[in-house]
Amino acid sequence: MASQYDVIVVGSGPGGYVAAIRASQLGMKTAVIERESLGGICLNWGCIPTKALLKSAQVFEYIKHAGDYGITVQGESQADFGAVIKRSRGVADSMSKGVQFLMKKNKIDVLNGVGKVKTGKKVEVTGPDGKATDYEAKHIIIATGGRARQLPAVPIDGEKVIEYRKAMTLEKRPDSMVIIGSGAIGVEFAYVYASMGTKVTIIEFLPNIVPVEDEDISKELAKQYKKMGVQLFTNSEVTKVDTSGKGCVVTAKTPDGEKTFEADVVLSAAGVVANIENIGLEDVGINTDRGKIVTDDYYRTNVEGYYAIGDCTKGQALAHVASAEAIICVEKIAGLPHVEPLNYNNIPGCTYCTPEIASVGYTEKAAREAGYDLKVGKFPFTASGKAKAAGAPEGFVKVIFDAKYGEFLGAHFIGANVTEMIAEVVAARRLETTGEEILKAVHPHPTMSEAIKDATEAAYGEAIHL
Amino acid sequence: MASQYDVIVVGSGPGGYVAAIRASQLGMKTAVIERESLGGICLNWGCIPTKALLKSAQVFEYIKHAGDYGITVQGESQADFGAVIKRSRGVADSMSKGVQFLMKKNKIDVLNGVGKVKTGKKVEVTGPDGKATDYEAKHIIIATGGRARQLPAVPIDGEKVIEYRKAMTLEKRPDSMVIIGSGAIGVEFAYVYASMGTKVTIIEFLPNIVPVEDEDISKELAKQYKKMGVQLFTNSEVTKVDTSGKGCVVTAKTPDGEKTFEADVVLSAAGVVANIENIGLEDVGINTDRGKIVTDDYYRTNVEGYYAIGDCTKGQALAHVASAEAIICVEKIAGLPHVEPLNYNNIPGCTYCTPEIASVGYTEKAAREAGYDLKVGKFPFTASGKAKAAGAPEGFVKVIFDAKYGEFLGAHFIGANVTEMIAEVVAARRLETTGEEILKAVHPHPTMSEAIKDATEAAYGEAIHL
Repeated sequence: MASQYDVIVVGSGPGGYVAAIRASQLGMKTAVIERESLGGICLNWGCIPTKALLKSAQVFEYIKHAGDYGITVQGESQADFGAVIKRSRGVADSMSKGVQFLMKKNKIDVLNGVGKVKTGKKVEVTGPDGKATDYEAKHIIIATGGRARQLPAVPIDGEKVIEYRKAMTLEKRPDSMVIIGSGAIGVEFAYVYASMGTKVTIIEFLPNIVPVEDEDISKELAKQYKKMGVQLFTNSEVTKVDTSGKGCVVTAKTPDGEKTFEADVVLSAAGVVANIENIGLEDVGINTDRGKIVTDDYYRTNVEGYYAIGDCTKGQALAHVASAEAIICVEKIAGLPHVEPLNYNNIPGCTYCTPEIASVGYTEKAAREAGYDLKVGKFPFTASGKAKAAGAPEGFVKVIFDAKYGEFLGAHFIGANVTEMIAEVVAARRLETTGEEILKAVHPHPTMSEAIKDATEAAYGEAIHL
Repeated sequence: MASQYDVIVVGSGPGGYVAAIRASQLGMKTAVIERESLGGICLNWGCIPTKALLKSAQVFEYIKHAGDYGITVQGESQADFGAVIKRSRGVADSMSKGVQFLMKKNKIDVLNGVGKVKTGKKVEVTGPDGKATDYEAKHIIIATGGRARQLPAVPIDGEKVIEYRKAMTLEKRPDSMVIIGSGAIGVEFAYVYASMGTKVTIIEFLPNIVPVEDEDISKELAKQYKKMGVQLFTNSEVTKVDTSGKGCVVTAKTPDGEKTFEADVVLSAAGVVANIENIGLEDVGINTDRGKIVTDDYYRTNVEGYYAIGDCTKGQALAHVASAEAIICVEKIAGLPHVEPLNYNNIPGCTYCTPEIASVGYTEKAAREAGYDLKVGKFPFTASGKAKAAGAPEGFVKVIFDAKYGEFLGAHFIGANVTEMIAEVVAARRLETTGEEILKAVHPHPTMSEAIKDATEAAYGEAIHL
């Protein structure tokens, strides 16, 4: 019997829905399985709705500082928390509807329900009515994503101890919040809530906030957050959350001994774990390692015909990684020529707090540990005309080159709009740029992006504006 | 007698001061001559102070639309015109002081006065006291810049009929303004004044506003400006400005016949002419052509030892062009290896109205006229999650590739923050990218910069999100 589908994708996040569209484009009959809303966490509970919240916070900040720009605001202004949340949900819903439109346009069947892979290249889909149906495909792509990691000492109750999903749908803005973990999710919510008036405390287990970033970035963000009134405790481990009283009491071991923190709400933001349970991996015999599905460079699992992409595999848990993996996986299935493995060292990471953070490649520490001799250059936005004119002189651009061949090893930005600037470095690194080439690419004046050139000049001892 | 200086630069704008610093870095004894404020038009009367005004206008727009973001503003808000102007002047002054610091740090002599080149590699500097002194140098770089072009029918009186300089220092916001010319300067001031409440009318001689841009960009900006209430008249020639009454009466030939426009103030923004008069060119015998100093690819004039860079030569009259020319000119003088001519087809242009415009390379029309077969892709920001979350769905990214070899011929952006996105295209074009390479450079999600990848996918018939 012929398979019903060429490709079935389990999960419709930025990995799954992109895989489905590309498969359909390449002439494959395709279905996508989704247990909840099309677009997955990214569109519904991640990237998109948080950016909407952050924009509201940013606009509120502008209003609070309107006088700095010569604008007079008479009377009070305030963030209407309900309206801010409603706007965010509206943006998420419209994006999810957009994916629905794309599925229809690309003639992709959307199978609503919970997917479970089975042997014989089948997927069982249990619909909202509890009825299970088997579907067959030549190729099954697992794109089930991830979810918030639960810390043993911090059981999530969804009321007082919450994760990101609840943090973007609270009915009332809490007066105080303890955030456990200072990755992108932690510091983004810290900014949103702090700017709207919540007293925010961040507790981080590692020595620096935003611990995956270059140390200079972490230090600068810490400086800015302290200025904003956010309390930071690093090298600190939460040992207990007591929710028996009116609010929460968080106990943590800090470098200064044990401390307790009171807060209305605790947000647990301690990373992401892959969704690999109850999806049939064991039945089919698909290998996992440290909680992730194991694949080769083209996302093939150990069982022929079964693939895995996105947060349920070992790459960075980022939407754009999932999408890139989706394209590679599907193009390889379709037998396209010139499909090449993804370079995980050239994946940009962005954090949309204020100031924003964007980075790619090696941190200075990692580059030194890898044995490179370095040329490092830094350009502060205090020296940028555009940043000054925009009233955003915070932050800097830091670039790292190999001293011997000029290879662009890494770039680390913190400041306004830097998330729109990092793509240059990604493209240039992909094209095997050297520092000299960056210097010869004329950056427009006045922009923040000039700082990339300025920092490169600094790395080469040719800084004009420092 | 040995020359007093290795290099004298006439003019301290973004061409001149950069040339002076690079010369000093390369071990040359250097002086720079400035008749007014260090930093030239760019820092004092151009790029920087206008960006400050535009930021104030943008913040004011956020406040006017705060409700869209869930922020409640009780009572009135208004742009305090005097404070807006004062902030802009403050930013300009601090940048000019920055150049002063850089001159000192790099041990560059600043000669205050009006410079005039003379035979025998001399420059005569007439100081504020009227005293003239001759200075001698091995190399003399002319970087005298440009000024607003005066139209015969629009004599500037500095009161009612003004140019950009006065437009950024008016004491009172006019109730109505006619802007003649719709290049970057014209549309930027149109946005500043319209957003603060002035009734603005733009009159453009050519068929489209922002006439150097791709036609699609011009059309989109026209749409957005009309929405904002700015009146646009294209294909229209101003024949008379009558300032005899209380305000101004502008007469113009339009496609619908002769029309008159009343306004408090008329802003003439009809382009830039080079400052080549009374600087001694004739005495030395330096060639000019159509009002610009003629140079070779390394900015050498026809007279040995005399060079010219920036707006007084024939390249685009843009600060970053002047700076790039400065570096090339000086490095060639210093005998550095691998100095290469500037590629004027890879110069980005930015306009900082809202929505912003950024572009580089061929327009679609120019590419077709040059005989290329094209792959053209367009991605509207309405389909961008980041743009939606930011409340900025206006505009699009348009990319143009050569169909045969995939050469990236041009990119044309209109939308929020696009001026920070164009550097990617410049760097990628410098590195001889193809469309495929842009697709394989992983753009971070969610950003506006993803639209470059999305538009490229569209050009290649592989659009995922359309």
